Amino acid sequence: MTRAILAGIAWAVLLPVHAQAPDPHAPAPGAATHDLMPAPQVLEWRPGRLVVDSRLTLAARGAADPRVAAALERFRRRLSAQSGLALRAPLGGGEATLTVDVSLPGAPVQAVGEDESYELTVDARRARLSAANPLGALRGLETLLQLARAEGGRTVIPAVHVSDRPRFPWRGLLLDPCRRWQPLEVVKRTLDGMAAVKLNVFHWHLSEDQGFRIESKAYPRLQLLGSDGLFYTQDQVRDVVAYARERGIRVVPEFDMPGHSSSWLAGYPELGSASGPFAVERRFGIFDNALDPTREEVYTFLDGFLGEMAALFPDAYLHIGGDEVTPRQWNANPAVLAFMYQHELRTAADLQAYFNRRVNAILARHGKRMVGWDEVLRPELPKDIVVQSWRGAEALAHAAEQGYDGLLSSGYYLDLNFPAAAHYLPDPLPAESTLPPAARAHVLGGEACMWGEYVSPENIDSRLWPRAAAVAERLWSPAALRDVDDMYRRLEVEGERLDRLGLTHRSSYPVMLARLAGSGPVEPVRALADVVEPVKEYRRGQMRRYTSDMPLTRLVDTARPESLAARRFRKDVDRLLLTPAGERDETAVRAALSAWQANHAAADPVLAAAPLGAEARSLSRDLSAAAALGLTALDAVKAGRQAPDAWSAEAVALLDQAAEPRAEVELAVLPAVRKLVLAAAQLDAARAQPLDQWNRALDEQVKRASAPRGGH
Amino acid sequence: MTRAILAGIAWAVLLPVHAQAPDPHAPAPGAATHDLMPAPQVLEWRPGRLVVDSRLTLAARGAADPRVAAALERFRRRLSAQSGLALRAPLGGGEATLTVDVSLPGAPVQAVGEDESYELTVDARRARLSAANPLGALRGLETLLQLARAEGGRTVIPAVHVSDRPRFPWRGLLLDPCRRWQPLEVVKRTLDGMAAVKLNVFHWHLSEDQGFRIESKAYPRLQLLGSDGLFYTQDQVRDVVAYARERGIRVVPEFDMPGHSSSWLAGYPELGSASGPFAVERRFGIFDNALDPTREEVYTFLDGFLGEMAALFPDAYLHIGGDEVTPRQWNANPAVLAFMYQHELRTAADLQAYFNRRVNAILARHGKRMVGWDEVLRPELPKDIVVQSWRGAEALAHAAEQGYDGLLSSGYYLDLNFPAAAHYLPDPLPAESTLPPAARAHVLGGEACMWGEYVSPENIDSRLWPRAAAVAERLWSPAALRDVDDMYRRLEVEGERLDRLGLTHRSSYPVMLARLAGSGPVEPVRALADVVEPVKEYRRGQMRRYTSDMPLTRLVDTARPESLAARRFRKDVDRLLLTPAGERDETAVRAALSAWQANHAAADPVLAAAPLGAEARSLSRDLSAAAALGLTALDAVKAGRQAPDAWSAEAVALLDQAAEPRAEVELAVLPAVRKLVLAAAQLDAARAQPLDQWNRALDEQVKRASAPRGGH
Repeated sequence: MTRAILAGIAWAVLLPVHAQAPDPHAPAPGAATHDLMPAPQVLEWRPGRLVVDSRLTLAARGAADPRVAAALERFRRRLSAQSGLALRAPLGGGEATLTVDVSLPGAPVQAVGEDESYELTVDARRARLSAANPLGALRGLETLLQLARAEGGRTVIPAVHVSDRPRFPWRGLLLDPCRRWQPLEVVKRTLDGMAAVKLNVFHWHLSEDQGFRIESKAYPRLQLLGSDGLFYTQDQVRDVVAYARERGIRVVPEFDMPGHSSSWLAGYPELGSASGPFAVERRFGIFDNALDPTREEVYTFLDGFLGEMAALFPDAYLHIGGDEVTPRQWNANPAVLAFMYQHELRTAADLQAYFNRRVNAILARHGKRMVGWDEVLRPELPKDIVVQSWRGAEALAHAAEQGYDGLLSSGYYLDLNFPAAAHYLPDPLPAESTLPPAARAHVLGGEACMWGEYVSPENIDSRLWPRAAAVAERLWSPAALRDVDDMYRRLEVEGERLDRLGLTHRSSYPVMLARLAGSGPVEPVRALADVVEPVKEYRRGQMRRYTSDMPLTRLVDTARPESLAARRFRKDVDRLLLTPAGERDETAVRAALSAWQANHAAADPVLAAAPLGAEARSLSRDLSAAAALGLTALDAVKAGRQAPDAWSAEAVALLDQAAEPRAEVELAVLPAVRKLVLAAAQLDAARAQPLDQWNRALDEQVKRASAPRGGH
Repeated sequence: MTRAILAGIAWAVLLPVHAQAPDPHAPAPGAATHDLMPAPQVLEWRPGRLVVDSRLTLAARGAADPRVAAALERFRRRLSAQSGLALRAPLGGGEATLTVDVSLPGAPVQAVGEDESYELTVDARRARLSAANPLGALRGLETLLQLARAEGGRTVIPAVHVSDRPRFPWRGLLLDPCRRWQPLEVVKRTLDGMAAVKLNVFHWHLSEDQGFRIESKAYPRLQLLGSDGLFYTQDQVRDVVAYARERGIRVVPEFDMPGHSSSWLAGYPELGSASGPFAVERRFGIFDNALDPTREEVYTFLDGFLGEMAALFPDAYLHIGGDEVTPRQWNANPAVLAFMYQHELRTAADLQAYFNRRVNAILARHGKRMVGWDEVLRPELPKDIVVQSWRGAEALAHAAEQGYDGLLSSGYYLDLNFPAAAHYLPDPLPAESTLPPAARAHVLGGEACMWGEYVSPENIDSRLWPRAAAVAERLWSPAALRDVDDMYRRLEVEGERLDRLGLTHRSSYPVMLARLAGSGPVEPVRALADVVEPVKEYRRGQMRRYTSDMPLTRLVDTARPESLAARRFRKDVDRLLLTPAGERDETAVRAALSAWQANHAAADPVLAAAPLGAEARSLSRDLSAAAALGLTALDAVKAGRQAPDAWSAEAVALLDQAAEPRAEVELAVLPAVRKLVLAAAQLDAARAQPLDQWNRALDEQVKRASAPRGGH
């Protein structure tokens, strides 16, 4: 599902720093005093600490559930790795240093809303984790691991009381191995990361125009002709479902229909509403191929196929996509038009609603509840379907008001290269929501989405992590927790923890940089890559025509979605400008600018020689030139001598040029350089007003200049 | 197979640099003019280069083999990744920029000695790869990828003619997922690395005291009670065999018997020669459990089990281990003793030979040839068995003289933490060999061995790669190629290439360092880790009692087996001392020593706070102190003023202390520091003799001081 329209939430967050200030009303309890992610509902520090030594014992008590035993064993291994101690295998029961108490067994198939709460108490002698349900024990063990820290050469767990439960029962992550293939190991390590940040739904987007990624034994041509041989076998699917269950994660498969269906038609052209032949799509975008909703054979096929899938995936929900259907093939088919006339279906949307009702009935027969994207929401559909909203919180509220369960995904599209803050703040139930309590209960939560056009197994983790943890916190933690700076602080720590869990969002970076540098030195290339970001939203596809088998090894694939160096620089510039003139310490700003200015001399020969580097040469040159402007501006600010108008006009023109994306990336430090240049040109104004007012005015000017050209 | 005795080859190579000088007789053609690894038999550069651009086409012609098509598609993807170009899918035939010609189809099951030769010609317009057999095409494509390089912003392949074939037909790598579990993805990426350096046998050590790692459907208690649930399913095995075949790699499974068999007995105690119960072994070493060779039920069982495995593994060979059987349980069992008396078997070795003959007959019935470790070599055994020698090239020659096929593994044990040079020089057929030609043909090649006691999925690649490439070159390239410095130069390049192929020998290092550093800065910890090495040979197990589930996240697990920083420093010291007194440039040596001296102040607080760091504090302190001595010695050498005897005696005593291994690692830079100290103390001697003679005398003194205490 590639969206042509942006939900509009992101740009507002991208630029002005003071817009990210914490909500003054209610900083959540404990925030900024811990590095847990997601933050728990209640955390109280107590005096003392539990020292982890080799005598530490672990035990699970109460309701027997193999998930708790397995989680305790994983806990032991991770705490062993961290502490270097060979901790003993968990006991079957009894009292131990860490005792996990679970009152009731869990549901045989993990259910929406199944109790995930837990209480955790640590003192100097022991830790006690208690939960009503095995799921709570799993969540609490992750919290406990996040609490463990190095202190005085030992691993300790500070004394604490945590009382925790999720805000929303459905906290998902969508993975799209259709646009580009993602092997099983990517799926498994994604599940590891999800469990670490308490996400509980793996939304597996398994069919698309570009690939049918699951084995059907009933209709084998689906994968044989629809996947280039790249699909998950049913054994692998069972393995993934078991792996996910063991980590407290439901698996909801999606089979997109009636649109996004070219790969179905490659093997079964008779399902189409146009005449074939059909082939797997290599390009990206929205295509006209669609199943024919007017023919009974199509429902017979879907009954067989969905029945097979319903048996394979135990979850109570099954996603049928339903998005972005174009009416072209239906309108061009006389038999379809005749059917519509006969059944009084006046529009393509009516016809799709008819299709959805039929599919919903099939799913109901197989014991599944239907989930679909926004478009499935129609009064004809029964109230037990779930609507996943990519259009926004308002669409979601609209569905909830009508009595439909709903999920928010607008604002959570990780493939659009927005900063973590842009994903952190959107809320399925915003503070200003006027939904009545009954409707609020229909807002089940949300899902982060990792659409697959521009990710390979090598760089997908860097798009998923750690930003998915920001969404995980939004869906788990108190609504009032909106302190962006503190989120970034904890996200950095969580990023390191995820790294040690085996995710490759950090470790892939040097490998990709070395490839970029060809046989030259890596450091100057890294210095450039550190301060660029891939273009945002859907611009990448507009700048170059992509297909599903193009290599993803260029600078745009290597650069992180959010440049933390640029964020740090922006903060340093703000701090500088908010400091009264005589007291300004410009060391950090000057060091960064000097390094960027000097870097081009080292980077250019490397980029010129390397096949993957040439396209980045002008970016490196412009970074250097912009940094030189920034240094001049900094001198002016430091000296308190306003820069001449002619100079600043020229500087702004140069920055405008440098801001033009190339090689599908942009220089992420330019807005802050521009702010410095504008500040140097408006020093007299600074003397006439409070500094924060001046600073805000500068931000407004930067925001106007940096907003993407062309309407959204 | 953990060896209590070292083959003795390594120490000789470890220390004196001039012992590694290239063989003066015959530097192999092309060495030092290319960065291929393994080096080809014949390489001639020609003028010009083939530029890789998006018009490049690929085609396979001649005998149809799906392996060639698949290899060409992998080639396309890797060249695409490197060049950033979306190269076109290979054509089915015809003429193309790169045309691969294969004359004959390959054997349905890859055979020992199947033709792997190829000819490769590249000019400015096209490349032609021709081979008699698909295997040659696979090898040639790897060479072609190694030839591709960055030049002027493009990827080019220099014009060249390569004529290449392996020196030995059996070039293996043993993986041991028994001591500690290695999941499927480790196996697959190991196969990727093997294919890149033209290794062609994956020796899969599947049963051990510590684990039975394969699913048997006939005898499921083998894996159910013998593996803690960590085993490869038969589906996974088929997947691995197919994956390996696609890369021109045979898979030879090993089921170790009659010793090393505790994990068999956990599920089937009736096979044992003592009374049970038996359990999977958690410790490492040599244990007494052994199958009972005197009972017919044992052979019935083995017939069933080996028949099942023979069907699963298509290769013509099957390895039965046969090493390190202790006679204790046999000697303690009256029924066994009675059987021995009755059958005139006088020793345990005789009884084992009887067992091997019976097993060999079973294997023959299932169409397999038997491979075993040295101990299986007995005159009673038929000549079609293969002997794998861990005892040395002489044992191998002895077997070959008697008409047995043999493999060398002595000198190739990658788990012993020896430098690449120590594995590079041992030769299955050394230049001084006096074997007659007929016997020489029995030397099939060799196998690098990665025994699994001290490797996790996180750090196994750093023990395998790139050093396995040095063994691969020994087994593929001309015997005369023995230039160690040039090998290191190419090994570094190959290490980078392997990195981009997805191996984690480099990318795991920062992750492990960050864990070591706890929440402190990583850089000072890295500076220390860069110059230590794990203790060599079997000392680790002597310093601490290990079990199979202890965490492997300490400094010893993080440090690379060979410190390249130490090697570089040693080279710099040599260069300094071999330069006439007035012309010495000590910059590099001084820079390194100064950095090490200063590092302790930064490292110590980090190490003190981190749970995994504390044990390394005294190493950091001693590194600093040794560096300070080195700086004093350097000043003396530079000034040409011999250091006083009292000072040097004290310095040597301090270096002796610092050389004591701790935390199972040693400071790898100490021998070169010691050399500098000795040089400073013997400057007068330097004036009395040629510099190289002086240098050699210093090396002798260092070697004597650095040799491990306790006899080998």
